[in-house]
Amino acid sequence: MRTAFYISDGTAITSEVFGHATLSMFPVEFNHQTIPFVETKKKAMEIKRLIDSTAESCGERPLVFFTFVNPELSEIILSSQGVCYDFLALASKVVKKELNVDPVPKIHRTHSIHEASYDFRIDAVNYALANDDGANIKDYEQADIILVGVSRSGKTPTSLYLALQYGIKAANYPMTEDDLEKGNFPSCLLPYKHKLFGLTINPERLSAIREGRMANSKYASLRQCRIEVREVEMLFKRHKTPYLNSTSHSVEEISAKIISETGLTRRKY
Amino acid sequence: MRTAFYISDGTAITSEVFGHATLSMFPVEFNHQTIPFVETKKKAMEIKRLIDSTAESCGERPLVFFTFVNPELSEIILSSQGVCYDFLALASKVVKKELNVDPVPKIHRTHSIHEASYDFRIDAVNYALANDDGANIKDYEQADIILVGVSRSGKTPTSLYLALQYGIKAANYPMTEDDLEKGNFPSCLLPYKHKLFGLTINPERLSAIREGRMANSKYASLRQCRIEVREVEMLFKRHKTPYLNSTSHSVEEISAKIISETGLTRRKY
Repeated sequence: MRTAFYISDGTAITSEVFGHATLSMFPVEFNHQTIPFVETKKKAMEIKRLIDSTAESCGERPLVFFTFVNPELSEIILSSQGVCYDFLALASKVVKKELNVDPVPKIHRTHSIHEASYDFRIDAVNYALANDDGANIKDYEQADIILVGVSRSGKTPTSLYLALQYGIKAANYPMTEDDLEKGNFPSCLLPYKHKLFGLTINPERLSAIREGRMANSKYASLRQCRIEVREVEMLFKRHKTPYLNSTSHSVEEISAKIISETGLTRRKY
Repeated sequence: MRTAFYISDGTAITSEVFGHATLSMFPVEFNHQTIPFVETKKKAMEIKRLIDSTAESCGERPLVFFTFVNPELSEIILSSQGVCYDFLALASKVVKKELNVDPVPKIHRTHSIHEASYDFRIDAVNYALANDDGANIKDYEQADIILVGVSRSGKTPTSLYLALQYGIKAANYPMTEDDLEKGNFPSCLLPYKHKLFGLTINPERLSAIREGRMANSKYASLRQCRIEVREVEMLFKRHKTPYLNSTSHSVEEISAKIISETGLTRRKY
């Protein structure tokens, strides 16, 4: 199998995201290797040797997606037997021409603690944990958004993703059978109706997920799941609460849709 | 302020990561706008008009980082007044030449629920939550890694990031004053010593974080923080537990360093 390397003087997350998006267009399997924090010439030489030995042992030149601030390190990687893409260099040339401003390369510019949004993100994670699953109904004043839905409809991973990636304070509240029977949101949520966003899910998928947690229970039965989903969707419609069906969406997609539909302010780019 | 648009038929996460990394090299402020899920010609036309009106109202052409599977949508964006970068198209041309294989563009290839790793990631998030802060000391058999450190040294956000991004099952256990006085890891951790990874932090930073939670407490005092940090670092050294100082690192950096040092298997690229 051919190898793809993602290399950088920082986390190499940018190299990975770009390289992975590029390679995912091709029907070819790769052995992926990420090598972060290549910050010295010695380390870069070691990686060059690794690329070379990989090329020799596998008989095909590895693809190398890399980005460095220090051009001396780039030179070392470029001298390897890999097929090397210094993908940001080209984009920065075009942007430079357009902005008529020279780049000021600086290490750890992205994905570091020095980003202005960093403390917001950690605060938001702490908030999401403290306000997970209806655990703390007194702090909704602080919430940017409150996700509501039946148990296991995807609220918790979405709250955490919104917090970690975007610094958005997302609480989440599980609509129980009792809440649904009353046919209204519980009183703790009513003052914050404008912050509610619903998640729903296909009953079949919900039942399968609940089976994994409590096999053969009423809770996991398809009948119960159908009732709860129908009632929660009716509630969303009656209150004009925006909602989306999480069944075939990842947390990344659900989060992007929520931000796009609500216009929530992200604290990170 | 000049505007930068990040546009895609999916989440636009790839456009954002690439565009943001490029622009972060320049000492220029931008108004960032992400527009995900542009999946129809009608929507693309609407976005083209938004780009054009932004160009006119602000007097400078917006920078547009975009990627579409459908070339008709690309054409519409390219016909706008923005400075447009179809950044994956170029890379895919080079890769195609190298691999001698045609790309098979498919929508939602990345960041979707269809990635093989998706269920792993959600399982890992559930695991991290159930095993946060020493909550459940019976499931360490399943852990890929167990983060240990004093209270507020960065264990929880790191566990969640490892789970959400990489599908790594990370438990975390807080070393209390009692544990530290005994001078050993608690008995629940001893069978899993090979899975332990320590996080430490500068006492001054720790004290500031703890003050935010419990002002003027013994817990937050610099003296107490110094004692705990000294003792936990001695313990890590005595047991040859790998550890790192989280003080000036983001969760992204801490996670990348942990994976790189331990050789943990990631379930997502």
